[in-house]
Amino acid sequence: MRRWNGWGDDTIAMTLTEGAKAMLASQLGAGHRAPDALRDDLLSQVPASRLQGAHPLIQTDASTRFSMAFGESYGDWIRKRFGALTPVPDGVAFVESGEHVRTLLDLAQQHDWVVIPFAGGTSVSGHLDCPLSERPVLSINLTRLCQLLHLDTKSQLATLGAGTPGPQIEALLRAQGYTLGHFPQSFEYSTVGGWVVTRSSGQQSLRYGRIEQLFAGGRMETPAGRLDIPTLPAASAGPDLRELVLGSEGRFGILTEACVRVSPLPAHESFHALFLPDWDAAEAAVRELVQRRLPLSMMRLSNPVETRTQLAMAGHANMIGWLERYLALRGCRDEKCLLMLGVSSDAPTARHALKQARLTLKAHGAAYIGTAMGSKWAAHRFKGPYLRNTLWEQGYSVDTIETAVDWPRVKPLMLAMEQTARDVFAPYGERVHAFSHLSHVYPQGSSIYAQFVWANVPGGFPAHVERWQKLKAAVAKTIADHGGTVSHQHGVGRDHAAQLHREKGPLGMATLAELCRHFDPKKIMNPGKLLQDGDPWAP
Amino acid sequence: MRRWNGWGDDTIAMTLTEGAKAMLASQLGAGHRAPDALRDDLLSQVPASRLQGAHPLIQTDASTRFSMAFGESYGDWIRKRFGALTPVPDGVAFVESGEHVRTLLDLAQQHDWVVIPFAGGTSVSGHLDCPLSERPVLSINLTRLCQLLHLDTKSQLATLGAGTPGPQIEALLRAQGYTLGHFPQSFEYSTVGGWVVTRSSGQQSLRYGRIEQLFAGGRMETPAGRLDIPTLPAASAGPDLRELVLGSEGRFGILTEACVRVSPLPAHESFHALFLPDWDAAEAAVRELVQRRLPLSMMRLSNPVETRTQLAMAGHANMIGWLERYLALRGCRDEKCLLMLGVSSDAPTARHALKQARLTLKAHGAAYIGTAMGSKWAAHRFKGPYLRNTLWEQGYSVDTIETAVDWPRVKPLMLAMEQTARDVFAPYGERVHAFSHLSHVYPQGSSIYAQFVWANVPGGFPAHVERWQKLKAAVAKTIADHGGTVSHQHGVGRDHAAQLHREKGPLGMATLAELCRHFDPKKIMNPGKLLQDGDPWAP
Repeated sequence: MRRWNGWGDDTIAMTLTEGAKAMLASQLGAGHRAPDALRDDLLSQVPASRLQGAHPLIQTDASTRFSMAFGESYGDWIRKRFGALTPVPDGVAFVESGEHVRTLLDLAQQHDWVVIPFAGGTSVSGHLDCPLSERPVLSINLTRLCQLLHLDTKSQLATLGAGTPGPQIEALLRAQGYTLGHFPQSFEYSTVGGWVVTRSSGQQSLRYGRIEQLFAGGRMETPAGRLDIPTLPAASAGPDLRELVLGSEGRFGILTEACVRVSPLPAHESFHALFLPDWDAAEAAVRELVQRRLPLSMMRLSNPVETRTQLAMAGHANMIGWLERYLALRGCRDEKCLLMLGVSSDAPTARHALKQARLTLKAHGAAYIGTAMGSKWAAHRFKGPYLRNTLWEQGYSVDTIETAVDWPRVKPLMLAMEQTARDVFAPYGERVHAFSHLSHVYPQGSSIYAQFVWANVPGGFPAHVERWQKLKAAVAKTIADHGGTVSHQHGVGRDHAAQLHREKGPLGMATLAELCRHFDPKKIMNPGKLLQDGDPWAP
Repeated sequence: MRRWNGWGDDTIAMTLTEGAKAMLASQLGAGHRAPDALRDDLLSQVPASRLQGAHPLIQTDASTRFSMAFGESYGDWIRKRFGALTPVPDGVAFVESGEHVRTLLDLAQQHDWVVIPFAGGTSVSGHLDCPLSERPVLSINLTRLCQLLHLDTKSQLATLGAGTPGPQIEALLRAQGYTLGHFPQSFEYSTVGGWVVTRSSGQQSLRYGRIEQLFAGGRMETPAGRLDIPTLPAASAGPDLRELVLGSEGRFGILTEACVRVSPLPAHESFHALFLPDWDAAEAAVRELVQRRLPLSMMRLSNPVETRTQLAMAGHANMIGWLERYLALRGCRDEKCLLMLGVSSDAPTARHALKQARLTLKAHGAAYIGTAMGSKWAAHRFKGPYLRNTLWEQGYSVDTIETAVDWPRVKPLMLAMEQTARDVFAPYGERVHAFSHLSHVYPQGSSIYAQFVWANVPGGFPAHVERWQKLKAAVAKTIADHGGTVSHQHGVGRDHAAQLHREKGPLGMATLAELCRHFDPKKIMNPGKLLQDGDPWAP
């Protein structure tokens, strides 16, 4: 069963190796473990619903409503762990068709309800926060819109219910020899509709593209009416309305169907590990590979701190020792960087890509160590978030902040994000273990995915939320100061909305607000997300 | 010097081979040649300017104003050839900076002028039509914004003045070892700003991408203020405002700077010709190649009628005779289709791509004939439009209509477009020679580029415009009925605006109108383009 106050299925638990525990203790000191709040205690505090009997589709029991009140951000996490109950929706409708959505949006406009769309519940940016509102709040749950409605193999297009989660999409497609190839770390629970409206990116985007490239068209019910986006291979027919659905974050309406571009299952797929002597060599190598446009499916480059962290956490101390001695002989020592390389294609293309990639990497001093580590990574690719449970139980917090920026600013911004985190914790006399990798590389630049681990302290929710808010705000400012995007793959939500004007500018913000007013004249849709309430650009 | 009433430089003239003349005569009968109107006669009819002395930047002489009144559509063509003068702008400003544009837009809002942006003047969709308006009309000419402002080789980004034309862009970039790789047939005159705001596509888009993929960011002056789009490799920061600049067709504002993604010049570039036995085999082969995502830079597939037409027009009857006998032995006879294949990459990738492509094509019955025909095509790739001059002088008209659609509808729509044209001319007892090629292929579908040649008749402008309008309207309806886009690469302009609602739907049209109102509250920008005046969706 899915955990209510932690990541993932409760039959799955990750363990920390002794090496990892030792590293945490030496880097951060001992963690503090506070008791968890109990779900039943929280449920007993859920106020009465203001939507009782409003419509047969709307459920109003406390347990169902409570389940729709949280996403998976660190803020959500500590609210659940410490029992800091925030508003919950007044009702939940498990819609089974676009017509259901239409009916509910019409009702919501008529009766002045707030509407929050919900599907996988995996947002780490506060997209699902329920506002404290004088208006009743309705959560529209899309998880029953989970069918493969049509597969056109000639055009390689699959039409899916917007609430279809990753594993079901892949199972339905694989049965017919196809894959979507979209693998965000939230894959187990996140849905195609969620990917589209938050502009998600999967681990093999180098081959399959971001969701922007995969989303061919679909249907969105907005308060102002239905928006149908036809599938077209390309068009010069004015502004592309698809791009208004992408990233709309529940502000313009609710996506009910998504038509996505699929591919035949690749004949060959493999993941390879290499080490490079230091960051500058590694970044140059990765940049050269992506700018050559070699048909690879993934490049994931860890910085030296992340590389050391991963090796410490891997266990098998003896084997890792041998590996490090071998790498040292090859010139990869303390500053070495781990590069994971994926290839997913037909066999001749895979041979060509791998051969050329290895030649290029060799010229940058890379040591190739084969596919064992890569295969292990692929087998556990969705397990990363489970570590958060384990770390919490050991008394540690972990959070992630990511961005993307053009190449000249990648290294300065990566280092500045890590330094900013240390500067946030220093006044408390506390430390943070900060490390980063490039998860998605482009000819123009790269994403930067930074992770932060710190030891929990006594003080409960207030102490934790204070540190987290300071960390988020300070790193977001550093990102904006360096010209990075508010988010490369997690969306804006409530948590990044305050910084969005740095990226969009005043006229851009006004444009987004105008679009909100256009699609949602009565302001019922997901308030405070994407655009903040109360700021000059509120719709 | 650029021709005032025909395509291109007046030192360049194409000739028709005897074979081509014979083909035209047998297909269409003799052409009719009417005398051309004289430029001076037209100039003498240009009414007085209503912007005399309005601002030092604004020129008001008849000759300059007349030059900004036309694009290159067939409608523009016959207006010039027959001397059917339509409104001309009251003034022309050759701006030299974004500040000039800002000043003029502010003035235009203050004094209620209409503004039409102009650069290469190559629109074939009526983007440059000057309306008959009670308000003075100002043409803002961007051709002096033609600098390479910045080249960042690490991010492979070039910032250009929006009015920089194709040859200058390539010359500036090639001097530093780079290329943009954007080669529309209008390349000689069209500009980067024009490409962006009409969503243009170049002949090698398979390698370099459409302008949507090349345009990384830039600056647009709108009546409501300046919109700065930062360059980012990718972002999940809400709806992508770049996509509102792309395809804005002068309705939201004027792009002054464009930052585009460039590439190092390829070490290898070659163009290869192959023939396939018939359309079904050829389409299947091309689809398989593009769905395999082989790193090719171009596929251009002519249908049987176009293939026969090209061979008849090639001259060298003896050589073509030998070629056809050879092809017949290889199974490519009357229904054969010519495929032009381009590769632009590093040498090992080119070897890989060519080898795999030829293996796949062979399995579909292709006969490979080497690079001679491909090299000739590449050398004359921008000469196609000059044939229009030659045909006109022989008494024939030619026009082009293009679209894109998903694979299952490519063949039915291609045949239907050609048949529709024949049906339009049949009631006149006249014939049309219709043929098509796929110029841009995608895993999901393909563009269809149809050309129509017919013999001119006596009756001057009214006879010609009647046939053309019937042809355009009927083929546009056929396209919409088959789910094709209003345009794959030429934009909407005035000529396709009536059909746009079939693609965008009522809420989509209302959204575009709302965006017009938002960026241009006083309705000064390029009226009637993209959205028609007077229809239910007019802003």
